[in-house]
Amino acid sequence: MDTSLTIAEVHLTPILIADPPLLNTQGVHQPYTPRLIVEVVTRGGVTGVGETYGDGDYLALARPLADSLIGHPVTDMNRLFSLAEAAECAAAGEGLSGAAGGDGDIDEGTGAAGLRGVRNAAKLRLSVVSGFEVACLDALGRTLGLPVHALLGGKVRDRVEYSAYLFYRWAAHPGPDAPADDWGAALDPQGIVAQARRFADAYGFRSFKLKGGVFPPDEEIAAVRALAAAFPGQPLRLDPNGAWSVETSLRVARELGDVLEYLEDPAAGTDRMARVAAGAGVPLATNMCVTTFPEIREAFARDAVQVVLSDHHYWGGLRNTRELAAICRTFGVGLSMHSNTHLGISLAAMTHVAATVPNLDYACDSHYPWQTEDVITRRHAFEDGCLTVPDAPGLGVELDRPALAALHRRWLDDDGTMRERDDAAAMRAAEPEWVTPAVPRW
Amino acid sequence: MDTSLTIAEVHLTPILIADPPLLNTQGVHQPYTPRLIVEVVTRGGVTGVGETYGDGDYLALARPLADSLIGHPVTDMNRLFSLAEAAECAAAGEGLSGAAGGDGDIDEGTGAAGLRGVRNAAKLRLSVVSGFEVACLDALGRTLGLPVHALLGGKVRDRVEYSAYLFYRWAAHPGPDAPADDWGAALDPQGIVAQARRFADAYGFRSFKLKGGVFPPDEEIAAVRALAAAFPGQPLRLDPNGAWSVETSLRVARELGDVLEYLEDPAAGTDRMARVAAGAGVPLATNMCVTTFPEIREAFARDAVQVVLSDHHYWGGLRNTRELAAICRTFGVGLSMHSNTHLGISLAAMTHVAATVPNLDYACDSHYPWQTEDVITRRHAFEDGCLTVPDAPGLGVELDRPALAALHRRWLDDDGTMRERDDAAAMRAAEPEWVTPAVPRW
Repeated sequence: MDTSLTIAEVHLTPILIADPPLLNTQGVHQPYTPRLIVEVVTRGGVTGVGETYGDGDYLALARPLADSLIGHPVTDMNRLFSLAEAAECAAAGEGLSGAAGGDGDIDEGTGAAGLRGVRNAAKLRLSVVSGFEVACLDALGRTLGLPVHALLGGKVRDRVEYSAYLFYRWAAHPGPDAPADDWGAALDPQGIVAQARRFADAYGFRSFKLKGGVFPPDEEIAAVRALAAAFPGQPLRLDPNGAWSVETSLRVARELGDVLEYLEDPAAGTDRMARVAAGAGVPLATNMCVTTFPEIREAFARDAVQVVLSDHHYWGGLRNTRELAAICRTFGVGLSMHSNTHLGISLAAMTHVAATVPNLDYACDSHYPWQTEDVITRRHAFEDGCLTVPDAPGLGVELDRPALAALHRRWLDDDGTMRERDDAAAMRAAEPEWVTPAVPRW
Repeated sequence: MDTSLTIAEVHLTPILIADPPLLNTQGVHQPYTPRLIVEVVTRGGVTGVGETYGDGDYLALARPLADSLIGHPVTDMNRLFSLAEAAECAAAGEGLSGAAGGDGDIDEGTGAAGLRGVRNAAKLRLSVVSGFEVACLDALGRTLGLPVHALLGGKVRDRVEYSAYLFYRWAAHPGPDAPADDWGAALDPQGIVAQARRFADAYGFRSFKLKGGVFPPDEEIAAVRALAAAFPGQPLRLDPNGAWSVETSLRVARELGDVLEYLEDPAAGTDRMARVAAGAGVPLATNMCVTTFPEIREAFARDAVQVVLSDHHYWGGLRNTRELAAICRTFGVGLSMHSNTHLGISLAAMTHVAATVPNLDYACDSHYPWQTEDVITRRHAFEDGCLTVPDAPGLGVELDRPALAALHRRWLDDDGTMRERDDAAAMRAAEPEWVTPAVPRW
């Protein structure tokens, strides 16, 4: 096989990127959040880029995986999973933190990691693999002159629709030296509607998701009602990140059933979700209850979720995302996409895979408009709420090396407080007594 | 995108290939069976080859699909399914037989098509698509200098193991001018063991599948017992193609449970299979009960099958086969591969996809040793029952054009009796009163 596709070098660049003071049920986004930029360089001199979580546990696994990839062709994507397992064992042998091996739960529901359900070694491994897989696909596509979507069997649509991602938020982070923006605070229905209006005007988004679980349910019901009044007939979603009891979830579903496209993760865990789903009368979506393949079987058998919000960072890459789509298609479960703080590399990856999946049933989430910094030379531009699927080779993005160097410098200069995303810790900067709320919160 | 990958021409060549007088519950293989060879030619001058069923219904859909592909890039594989649907509608509009549109059942259990369960338009469409998808993958791999397995994410094994496929058979087809071989008859345990010995000696096969449903169950039990005595500890399988009742199936499972690796399609339909599975004590495999994605949900929910025998001709290609593998992995169902009369193009395709699937749990079936004719220049050679995964560009096979022309000439010269595979009709050449047995037969 063509040795120009052999991986000669892998570069890992942890960075810190600005993030606004967005609120969720765990706390608030930090002023800066860690990401990891993966560069795979082939013997042919082509560089492919990927992006994933940048917290210490992810870095601890990414480093030995990067070493083990040298000499493999970039086409060797099916082997990434076993290579990552081997790297995990090697790292555990050297006593590196966070690469403990095994698939046991690491912790449940604490820190920002709790927003994606139970955290365990398998999830961490898949998230690390996703960054490498995207980098391999980018390098392969650039070498061959093919867009990533063509490597995934070709696009079935030319544009991918995204939805506005509304957050309760403060005007500014507490403390000095934090990044600032001009969005202002949004802490009531009026603020949320104003935010939605700005999103619609600036990007053309036609559907709206509100991150809930921040205020008592009646306040969030009022916010959704205000959105429904302001944007009649447009799809609305509410996502309290599992903060509610079954009873509260059912009550919210009853009160908002006429305007919600779906209700996202109202309650935590498959059992609660199944009990809500049985009586909700509105589809339940999730990026917490079903985030890995082993969680599918029980959740589908119990009809606990009607829409899976895929996320290639969770599921182990773009190819695994397509397999998830096939499973959802087969079992009559809807599909869309989750998003949290990420940059343009990941948005390009999302757009490519979304373009290839026939059963993309809803507009995808996108956190991207909240990110003011990026590591690509030309930021993605939404039109009518959509991104045009790139046809350029690879992902169709170019790394902005000065920007990457500056964000890496920030990571190097950080005293350690920002290198792990911890929304509860960030909240304590404003509310010193804050602890991650027990579930269900309401 | 690189226009050298654009499809400039598609050639369809129906052929008739020699097939021995192999017996099954429906009848006997015809002296010749139809296959369709698909050639996709790119603007870059590269030809990719695929192979699928060649009966009239398949040809009737393949022709308009071939026309509709001109101008598409060979990477456009995700669109093949909607293009085939559109071609089917167009063909139906012109009143072509066998391309009736819709997914309703065409017939159930009659003719050789009954061996793959209920026959409908969706299955036919997927089988046609599979030949085109493999040809596109071959053309893409040849253009890029990459083996097909690399286009599927890379091999996770270097060899794929196959099993011996034993048949009750006559020494020769009835009637004149039929192809002949030196295998002789196998109509009792002794004959089956002798056939197995020759397979083991010639090809190194270590596991054995007996096509059953031909003789009353006690005779087939005796044959499997004889195999177990002759090949102690080696994996054995028995496949009566759904010929048995639930009670008979349970009795056979009880009597052979200590030597069977799995029992394949003992009874017809999900309901019977579920009832057998509940009491069999041995895994049930299938290539009849679960042959398309819509059949999975109920069968898995009822635990009707423990092993799905994939077949890229059934499932719509190599990429769909990988999706099936992901579903089986997710739901804890075993996976292996089915095979019936096919040539070296399809065996190459099977080997490539099998090499990429981590959860290939059993040695794959292979009908290939029974085929004395081929359309490739160098036939595949089993070693220790395995095929080495080709690393040459594309499928790694070369079309033998004189051989293809000769087999096509046979198809052209046929008076129509061989152009549709019909094992019951073939049986009537020997037993004029033969009708396809009702199910369950025993």
